[in-house]
Amino acid sequence: MLKTDHLYFGGDYNPEQWPADSWKQDIQDMQKLGVNIVSIGIFSWASIEPKEGQFDFSWMDEIVKLLTEANIAIDMASGTASPPAWLTRKHPEMLATTNMGVRFNHGGRQHYSPASKAYEEYSLKYLEQILKRYAGHPNIVMWHVNNEIGCHNPYDFGEETAVKFREWLQAKYSTVDELNDAWYTTFWSQRYSTFEEIQPPSFTSYGTSPNPAMEMDYRRYSSDQLLSIYVRERDLIRKYDSETPITTNFMSMSGTFAMDYWKWSKEMDFVSTDHYMTFSSKDRGIDLALYSDLTRGFAGGESWLLMEHSSSSVNWQPINTIKSNNEAVNNGLQHTFRGSQGALFFQLRQSRGGSERFHSSIIPHSGVDTRIGRNMRELSSQLESLSNIAGENTKPAKIAMIFDYEDSWVTDQANLPSERLKYREELHLWYKSIFNTGEQLDFIDKAQSFKKFSDYSVIIAPLMHIVNNELVSELKRFVENGGTLITTYFSGAADQNLALLGNSYGGKFLTDIFGVTVEEYAPMDEPEGNLSNGYKNSTWREITSVDSSVEVLASFADRGETKNSPAVTRRSVGRGKAIYVGTRLDAGSLADLVASELSLSHDNLGLSAVTRGDKTLYWNSSDQVLTHNQKTLEPGEFAIE
Amino acid sequence: MLKTDHLYFGGDYNPEQWPADSWKQDIQDMQKLGVNIVSIGIFSWASIEPKEGQFDFSWMDEIVKLLTEANIAIDMASGTASPPAWLTRKHPEMLATTNMGVRFNHGGRQHYSPASKAYEEYSLKYLEQILKRYAGHPNIVMWHVNNEIGCHNPYDFGEETAVKFREWLQAKYSTVDELNDAWYTTFWSQRYSTFEEIQPPSFTSYGTSPNPAMEMDYRRYSSDQLLSIYVRERDLIRKYDSETPITTNFMSMSGTFAMDYWKWSKEMDFVSTDHYMTFSSKDRGIDLALYSDLTRGFAGGESWLLMEHSSSSVNWQPINTIKSNNEAVNNGLQHTFRGSQGALFFQLRQSRGGSERFHSSIIPHSGVDTRIGRNMRELSSQLESLSNIAGENTKPAKIAMIFDYEDSWVTDQANLPSERLKYREELHLWYKSIFNTGEQLDFIDKAQSFKKFSDYSVIIAPLMHIVNNELVSELKRFVENGGTLITTYFSGAADQNLALLGNSYGGKFLTDIFGVTVEEYAPMDEPEGNLSNGYKNSTWREITSVDSSVEVLASFADRGETKNSPAVTRRSVGRGKAIYVGTRLDAGSLADLVASELSLSHDNLGLSAVTRGDKTLYWNSSDQVLTHNQKTLEPGEFAIE
Amino acid sequence: MLKTDHLYFGGDYNPEQWPADSWKQDIQDMQKLGVNIVSIGIFSWASIEPKEGQFDFSWMDEIVKLLTEANIAIDMASGTASPPAWLTRKHPEMLATTNMGVRFNHGGRQHYSPASKAYEEYSLKYLEQILKRYAGHPNIVMWHVNNEIGCHNPYDFGEETAVKFREWLQAKYSTVDELNDAWYTTFWSQRYSTFEEIQPPSFTSYGTSPNPAMEMDYRRYSSDQLLSIYVRERDLIRKYDSETPITTNFMSMSGTFAMDYWKWSKEMDFVSTDHYMTFSSKDRGIDLALYSDLTRGFAGGESWLLMEHSSSSVNWQPINTIKSNNEAVNNGLQHTFRGSQGALFFQLRQSRGGSERFHSSIIPHSGVDTRIGRNMRELSSQLESLSNIAGENTKPAKIAMIFDYEDSWVTDQANLPSERLKYREELHLWYKSIFNTGEQLDFIDKAQSFKKFSDYSVIIAPLMHIVNNELVSELKRFVENGGTLITTYFSGAADQNLALLGNSYGGKFLTDIFGVTVEEYAPMDEPEGNLSNGYKNSTWREITSVDSSVEVLASFADRGETKNSPAVTRRSVGRGKAIYVGTRLDAGSLADLVASELSLSHDNLGLSAVTRGDKTLYWNSSDQVLTHNQKTLEPGEFAIE
Repeated sequence: MLKTDHLYFGGDYNPEQWPADSWKQDIQDMQKLGVNIVSIGIFSWASIEPKEGQFDFSWMDEIVKLLTEANIAIDMASGTASPPAWLTRKHPEMLATTNMGVRFNHGGRQHYSPASKAYEEYSLKYLEQILKRYAGHPNIVMWHVNNEIGCHNPYDFGEETAVKFREWLQAKYSTVDELNDAWYTTFWSQRYSTFEEIQPPSFTSYGTSPNPAMEMDYRRYSSDQLLSIYVRERDLIRKYDSETPITTNFMSMSGTFAMDYWKWSKEMDFVSTDHYMTFSSKDRGIDLALYSDLTRGFAGGESWLLMEHSSSSVNWQPINTIKSNNEAVNNGLQHTFRGSQGALFFQLRQSRGGSERFHSSIIPHSGVDTRIGRNMRELSSQLESLSNIAGENTKPAKIAMIFDYEDSWVTDQANLPSERLKYREELHLWYKSIFNTGEQLDFIDKAQSFKKFSDYSVIIAPLMHIVNNELVSELKRFVENGGTLITTYFSGAADQNLALLGNSYGGKFLTDIFGVTVEEYAPMDEPEGNLSNGYKNSTWREITSVDSSVEVLASFADRGETKNSPAVTRRSVGRGKAIYVGTRLDAGSLADLVASELSLSHDNLGLSAVTRGDKTLYWNSSDQVLTHNQKTLEPGEFAIE
Repeated sequence: MLKTDHLYFGGDYNPEQWPADSWKQDIQDMQKLGVNIVSIGIFSWASIEPKEGQFDFSWMDEIVKLLTEANIAIDMASGTASPPAWLTRKHPEMLATTNMGVRFNHGGRQHYSPASKAYEEYSLKYLEQILKRYAGHPNIVMWHVNNEIGCHNPYDFGEETAVKFREWLQAKYSTVDELNDAWYTTFWSQRYSTFEEIQPPSFTSYGTSPNPAMEMDYRRYSSDQLLSIYVRERDLIRKYDSETPITTNFMSMSGTFAMDYWKWSKEMDFVSTDHYMTFSSKDRGIDLALYSDLTRGFAGGESWLLMEHSSSSVNWQPINTIKSNNEAVNNGLQHTFRGSQGALFFQLRQSRGGSERFHSSIIPHSGVDTRIGRNMRELSSQLESLSNIAGENTKPAKIAMIFDYEDSWVTDQANLPSERLKYREELHLWYKSIFNTGEQLDFIDKAQSFKKFSDYSVIIAPLMHIVNNELVSELKRFVENGGTLITTYFSGAADQNLALLGNSYGGKFLTDIFGVTVEEYAPMDEPEGNLSNGYKNSTWREITSVDSSVEVLASFADRGETKNSPAVTRRSVGRGKAIYVGTRLDAGSLADLVASELSLSHDNLGLSAVTRGDKTLYWNSSDQVLTHNQKTLEPGEFAIE
Repeated sequence: MLKTDHLYFGGDYNPEQWPADSWKQDIQDMQKLGVNIVSIGIFSWASIEPKEGQFDFSWMDEIVKLLTEANIAIDMASGTASPPAWLTRKHPEMLATTNMGVRFNHGGRQHYSPASKAYEEYSLKYLEQILKRYAGHPNIVMWHVNNEIGCHNPYDFGEETAVKFREWLQAKYSTVDELNDAWYTTFWSQRYSTFEEIQPPSFTSYGTSPNPAMEMDYRRYSSDQLLSIYVRERDLIRKYDSETPITTNFMSMSGTFAMDYWKWSKEMDFVSTDHYMTFSSKDRGIDLALYSDLTRGFAGGESWLLMEHSSSSVNWQPINTIKSNNEAVNNGLQHTFRGSQGALFFQLRQSRGGSERFHSSIIPHSGVDTRIGRNMRELSSQLESLSNIAGENTKPAKIAMIFDYEDSWVTDQANLPSERLKYREELHLWYKSIFNTGEQLDFIDKAQSFKKFSDYSVIIAPLMHIVNNELVSELKRFVENGGTLITTYFSGAADQNLALLGNSYGGKFLTDIFGVTVEEYAPMDEPEGNLSNGYKNSTWREITSVDSSVEVLASFADRGETKNSPAVTRRSVGRGKAIYVGTRLDAGSLADLVASELSLSHDNLGLSAVTRGDKTLYWNSSDQVLTHNQKTLEPGEFAIE
């Protein structure tokens, strides 16, 4: 984990984009705004190695010197994120291929296949030169491996990937018949007689999709293959530098779910992440909190680092709106209170050209004496005054939510009961229902690698489709020991190959813990429905029966064969209780359920509170004026106490 | 045709998906639910021939034995629907190619090019082994060739298809100049100098489409090429089994129009079809009746077999809603009264894995003592009690509707007067307008291959764009002899190459029979318009003049150059009458027109009645309570009398 | 420029589509309708050279003779628009390739890569045969090079294009480092070490776009490469015919912006264009005026020729509605008054088959004694009576609008502040605001190649993103000398490589002329907003400061950090004024601004007036009855005085 005695403020600096005679002014501007760390070299491969084997370190040497003199710490990049044009021309087979057989062209970034041997060879050769020159430099405080691994090339369908995928499968399955069993290949005559017959799951035929279990293994493989890029670079760095912490910047944010960061985190010296808002979201502040909390989960509750964020607008969303002054400062503080050792931004100085010239920065196009410049100075001042919490962790929560990448991959698949099954949406709904009570929440994984279930009094597991016996047992023990367990429709139904378990949908997980037997899934085609207790629901209904020990809190109230079937139930199990929600509740109904079942106060709804060390950050996330400790907080306003 | 002394109930059984020790329980469950036939071996190729030339019949032998002992008849599949992975690896050129040049990957099903020589060779080799082992088995009551031929690979654009397409064209056109004339290749310099220059009509250039006549021939070729797969398998089966009837399961349902089943039917020992609802349709029950009636048309009014249907939800639509209890039973009975020798389902036992694990079945995931199990038992009981109609045909109707695949292909093309021209939608509208009166309707084809026009008192021919002289003469004689002929806008305009006929749109067909001369097509861009008699219309207007013998029932009443132009006309011709509808009428207007012009009663609108033998099935397809013979029928309720 | 003593009426005639014995009737029909010119041979390549090197001129000879005898002038095509099937079969590498790597199939038209050597060689060989036979024929009054160059193949990504693109770049940039500087390739490690590494900007990776400066150069290259097709054919024609004017038909209309026609015009003996309405547009008549005025701009204010237009509906839009009688005649007259030497149509006689059989024509499918035939005769009569204006130019306007292809290409790119940035929409809005006052407007280009800024009293420059120092100086001098200059948001911000200029958005252009400093772009995500003076706005806000010399006419009035920031400003500069509009105004607000700032009368708004020679065409483009000189004009009605 990343332990520091102060909080970081800075970002990605690309001096190669600017004339050398402007660097001193840049550094003066940084100092004026309170920058104390910069990441360099992320996209410098083609500048440092302009032709194969010809290295020019002169400008990088100068920048390292200037930053060191200015007492600005360096996050040194391995620089392998975007292989140069001379390399892809020499090795065009290095370029990735889509599921429709289209090979990426050089010209964006991250155009390489994660399985490419040539990319592996040349990227390590380049990194070794960087290491020979800079490893051990006292001003380098961390190593930045590659960049946003998997952002633009998470899935490849080329020949090198086919080979690696088969190797991965052979390592998982000792024989092809074991694979045939796992993948249920008796279906549609899909049986394989050798591993060599297996191709990555690209476009099959009109109206069909690849085997669902194969798709799951392919996504596992893809995450592992991308992780291997980090691991090999990290291992090379360790040969030259035995101490400086190494990380790669995750992208724990909306829209990025290809990489299983629970698994990745174990390979990091400390967890770091990039986070960008979805600017079209009304709840973007709550989304930030969610992904910030999730990142703290990856870090096992310990501190991590916000490696990229935006001071205001970005350049890659449909409409790149700006942030308000409050928002810009609050965002950085939220991340910090939720565990980040400060706030770093892309980009330190705004590009004059290229695809990201309209992306906001710490030093904007219009200079530092600007609205954005003042917001950034305000944030860095706040971070300076919070140095005393740098050594503390965010206060642990009593409520935990299970987040699982594989469950999220399920609802990306075709051939489900309803296209409205959306793991990430359900997760957001539940997160928001807790957030709005002001309570803090921790994310945990199914494997309990960082936290024990018993550390919490409440566990929420939305759309937890995949289970195994051990998980069911552990969760049952959690409830028996006094915990409150909540799960929803579509949970507990399948094993890791998506094969249906048991003799009812949800199998032992639902019957043994919740006393619920789901006979039929009955997705809704109308937008909204009603439950017997006045709740509104959508997406899902079921035909369900319950044990006599179960209290039905609400049943489906509309017409059709599901009428009167239980929708929301509660069962006492040992010293705890198990709550089942067999539908998607609307926000108001869910808030009511959460408040009553978890005994959460309705006072000051919308006032978020998160505590780190001796400080608490309060933020009015609602659209109404709230009072806190006799003080008024306008919508969007925050206070530290 | 398929004549039996009882009605079938059963479906597709895939025992290879389950452990052998569960088969006996499966068969007990089948017996409990009244199953008397199963289809086996449809997707067994890779299980029976796991490596090239290595055959394992042991499990199939056992299943055949168990079924025979249980007195459950067998529909034995040729098993060629999904070639195994060892074969596509050996012959990757077998895989089909999209119109954008993307080759299908192995991994779904039906990934082969219909023109593939390797597929032909290996599929027949496989089938021959099946035949050597099972032909003549007394419990095999029918042969099931391939499966849903053309479902996922109706159009291929690869090199083998190019060759076959050229051969097909050379057989149709004796010289390339005959083809040039037919295709009007003087347009856009498209003239061919040899057949070798012709490619399948894949993506041409941005904003252009292939030659329209070529597209028509390509669709004819594609249907013929797919049919040839059936024919060659059937011919091989006949070498080994001279008696057992042979079929392949059509897909006469919404969304499947690539195969010209009028032509295909002539090659079948009996017609069979799969039918699935479009669950998002409000009129899905009426759609079922339409496609069921259409299938009876393919069968020449004789009996046919519903080879696949769903007991409840499917897995491949956006939202896979369930069926109500009434609906599940009524669906099977509707098909039966409309000519099917019972009701078969996909799938007999619900898969535990694979793409279709959420597809309903006769034996559901939750077992037979379930809502679905009870519905299936109810249906099988009904079918048992209806054995006496198995030897009868559905009572012929007095109203016929012309359905033509080529006319349906026309409105799939680009470069038409309006993208709102939709053959299938128009057909549904007219079908529904008859259905709602409670009257029965037969489908016929233009070539009158099964039925004579003179068997009917009314013929409806919506959007019949393609005509020839013989058809015009026959229809004229039909009217002169006392028939009522109805046609609509866009009819009569073109020959089979889509070249415009005559000196007005609709040519001799409209002028000679209806007394209507269409000078200009004038499609509507607003959603709805008005006719002079209060009718509402959409999609289409025309600038039209009529003979003095024509009575104008309604003219276009809105602004613009079409104002006062005739929209709906009637003309007495000989002893009959010819009604022209030059626009799309809304449902209410069309109902009014149909009732008044065809003298159909308005009593009990929405009460469907279909008679087979001495039984009539009444079904309340409306959303209001109806009374029939002093009995009350709730919406969706049905009764047999 | 094209000077004639009468106005042309005619169109594209394709006699090869019809039997020879119908040609005389065609010509009689032409004479009846007043046709005095036809274009022939446009798509005759495959008819004249059915096999390589075998030429059949017999039918063309006959047509030339018949037309000459009938005194119908000939626009003779080079005939190279659609290479025959024997050629693309021999040279499949000639076919163009999409940005996703899909090669065009033969079968539409314009399937060739603009960079193809084989196409160049064979098209010139073909043309030479045409020239040897027909050059010097006295009835040929103009040469028609190719046809709608770039309509279906504006962008190619194949190997031959890669080579040509590199050559083009090497001609522009003396070294690859000059290119690296221009393209800002330090960004994302995009630096090139040799020109050979550069590929056309096809699909890069998921979520990235090619380098923005590269995209601009690629679009410049593509326009130039297409122009070179014209130039080489023109040069060959000139070898055989030193006098007859040569042109190629532009497509100055909605949706076609790939070709920089300002640049192209310089290579034409006279400018000609095709124009088709967007039938779904409510303002299609105003759009016609815009593109007609723009074409006159290309022609430097001199006369040009409408080479194609439609008598009524087309066949390639979603809903191909018809034209009213008034509209059909007015359209032809509008083009003529705006500078065309008459009105030519596609197509002269309506095809019986092929993709365009539903496209309207001068001689319709239903013959000449039809509504369309009468409209065409009415138009030709009007043109005959207007012969005296044939020698005159359209009266120059006092208001000019800058139209720039490169600025239009900018808002096609990704990674902008807002996807709602739409150059063409903004242009239409401003054009309409002037049009509705009844004032005439001229289009000019930035380079002032045809007109000097000083010829105008008002210059409007919407979304003029790209500027250079010379342009800024010239526009400043224009204002100082008494002109009124209007520009909008997003203007002045970048150089030709899209690199940001200056220290604020809009740089010297906005600060020096308008006194406006834009600190931040702040795009709107809500549909509409308010300004302080009651105006409504959309799309855009800014954080801006103004000099003390600036009068703020309106500021942003909604919540957020832009509140009170100037939105519409005016500044006196020398004897003129500079008006800045930092947002998109709604139509009413813009009309108000235009009327008050340009002192345009509100009388008879919607009455368009355009003068050529001694005649003025008045047209009521509004939906209200207007009076003009005591005469009533119904909506859509027009009058010539």
